[in-house]
Amino acid sequence: MTNYFKGKPVGREMLEKSIESTAEQLHAIMDELLPEPSGLIEDQLFKALRYVALSPGKRIRPYLVVATSNAFGVSLDCALKTAVAIEFIHAYSLVHDDLPAMDNDDFRRGQPSCHKKFDEATAILTGDALLTLAFEMLAHESTHSDPGVRTELISKIAIASGYRGMVGGQMMDLLAQHNTLEFSEVVRLQRMKTGALFAVSCEAGAILGKASKNLRNALRAYANNIGIAFQITDDLLDAEGTREETGKSVRKDKSQGKATLVSCIGIEKAKEHALVLAKQAIEHLNIFDGKANLLKELAYFIVERNK
Amino acid sequence: MTNYFKGKPVGREMLEKSIESTAEQLHAIMDELLPEPSGLIEDQLFKALRYVALSPGKRIRPYLVVATSNAFGVSLDCALKTAVAIEFIHAYSLVHDDLPAMDNDDFRRGQPSCHKKFDEATAILTGDALLTLAFEMLAHESTHSDPGVRTELISKIAIASGYRGMVGGQMMDLLAQHNTLEFSEVVRLQRMKTGALFAVSCEAGAILGKASKNLRNALRAYANNIGIAFQITDDLLDAEGTREETGKSVRKDKSQGKATLVSCIGIEKAKEHALVLAKQAIEHLNIFDGKANLLKELAYFIVERNK
Repeated sequence: MTNYFKGKPVGREMLEKSIESTAEQLHAIMDELLPEPSGLIEDQLFKALRYVALSPGKRIRPYLVVATSNAFGVSLDCALKTAVAIEFIHAYSLVHDDLPAMDNDDFRRGQPSCHKKFDEATAILTGDALLTLAFEMLAHESTHSDPGVRTELISKIAIASGYRGMVGGQMMDLLAQHNTLEFSEVVRLQRMKTGALFAVSCEAGAILGKASKNLRNALRAYANNIGIAFQITDDLLDAEGTREETGKSVRKDKSQGKATLVSCIGIEKAKEHALVLAKQAIEHLNIFDGKANLLKELAYFIVERNK
Repeated sequence: MTNYFKGKPVGREMLEKSIESTAEQLHAIMDELLPEPSGLIEDQLFKALRYVALSPGKRIRPYLVVATSNAFGVSLDCALKTAVAIEFIHAYSLVHDDLPAMDNDDFRRGQPSCHKKFDEATAILTGDALLTLAFEMLAHESTHSDPGVRTELISKIAIASGYRGMVGGQMMDLLAQHNTLEFSEVVRLQRMKTGALFAVSCEAGAILGKASKNLRNALRAYANNIGIAFQITDDLLDAEGTREETGKSVRKDKSQGKATLVSCIGIEKAKEHALVLAKQAIEHLNIFDGKANLLKELAYFIVERNK
């Protein structure tokens, strides 16, 4: 798939370097944090946790935490802890969504999905352990010295992950294979399944930095736009990309008869819409003066990526 | 199965009434808290959440939260919130453990298990939603006005539920079907799979009540003993009880070749051991004077139950 948006490349290199170095830091923390196999009976769980979490992902959600934290002067150390928790929640959702009873995906991040590499039981438990570990991390004082900030984060992240967010969205998505969804229902589905965790990843920086309501609202509006833009791009990659590029199975939506934003409005209109959303997202950041430049560039990056 | 311990029945009636009325209060809170099906596409998830959480369980773990909170003068309202969160975590673990890829149990709490009533995907998501909702509740200010207390609870409960606790224990349990475990390994397995959540259920009252270290340690020691005693009784019910009594499938351990505490030491020794553990548990409570009488009676109740 070629890039469909020829936007200004200003700052792209800097953004990519920033994403890359953040990904390395996230990897180091996860590597340190996850238990190592050590001859215990349950070693297989530890192997699966490391296999899933340390595989090379895009790390967009944790990057949002770090980038928004940066805009509010939050220490990188604190931001990275929350970012890792968000990445664990994202990773758990991929492992469970890939299960045969769910989306039945054998391929993820360029390698066999967890239940193919190990087995279904291990994949279910690996997801459960990652979700639980995320909340353990968020509750820890190294995430933020103020426990009130930590409980606010936990509350928002739990709501975004649970039945009103990711879990509810995945339930809708499964049922969408047997029902024809209207465009507005697909939008609601995507807001829950992808948008909610995107939104809270952006808001995390504002919560950690105890930002004003105005700035929080601006970030949330930005996040809502790039969340949908991200999902449209995912759908486009499923429709037009290759497994080699994306690292996961493609053409799944069509073969499963899934209603997506792209199937609702068509490929060309979807590309236009993603770009409009990215531009709208950027508008919301003007209130930050120059402090959110990386986030602005990120909005374009999200609709231009090819994986 | 007949009672194998003829202990003093002092206080039994009062304990049973207390357990019953607590169960009713828990039910009312869960009923209020869980979303109602309302014509949404994802209604099936809401139905499954209610099916699982509102089915008649023993509610031993949440009762431990309420009983220990009572010993420290914690308001019943706060105690019940934490108790519900613990019950959600217990319920999630049952739903996931019953899945075909795990213990493959079709019957739970006197009714078809979640994946039989609905389907596997719904059961996986129901478990995920319950686990997430538990942490959302624990983070909420209605659980305790002090956010530091809430983060301590979340941290302890996450550790007890994750790879060092329930999830790790379940992984061991699955692998135990292919390996012969030694007695000490079975004890470690049970401490993780059942004991950890039992222990934190007891400690919860001490955390909510900001109790002294001494009293906390006493409660933890009590919890460790009754946790193992509870598991032995479960194993005995599997070996000797009926499906009608227990509300779940029986003779599973033997047919799956599972090493349990009972298979390791035999039925008669296991009964003796459970009783010794109950008595030891009670010893630890002497430090409370009369304030923990319900907990003392509960230790006997746990080894005398027939379901």
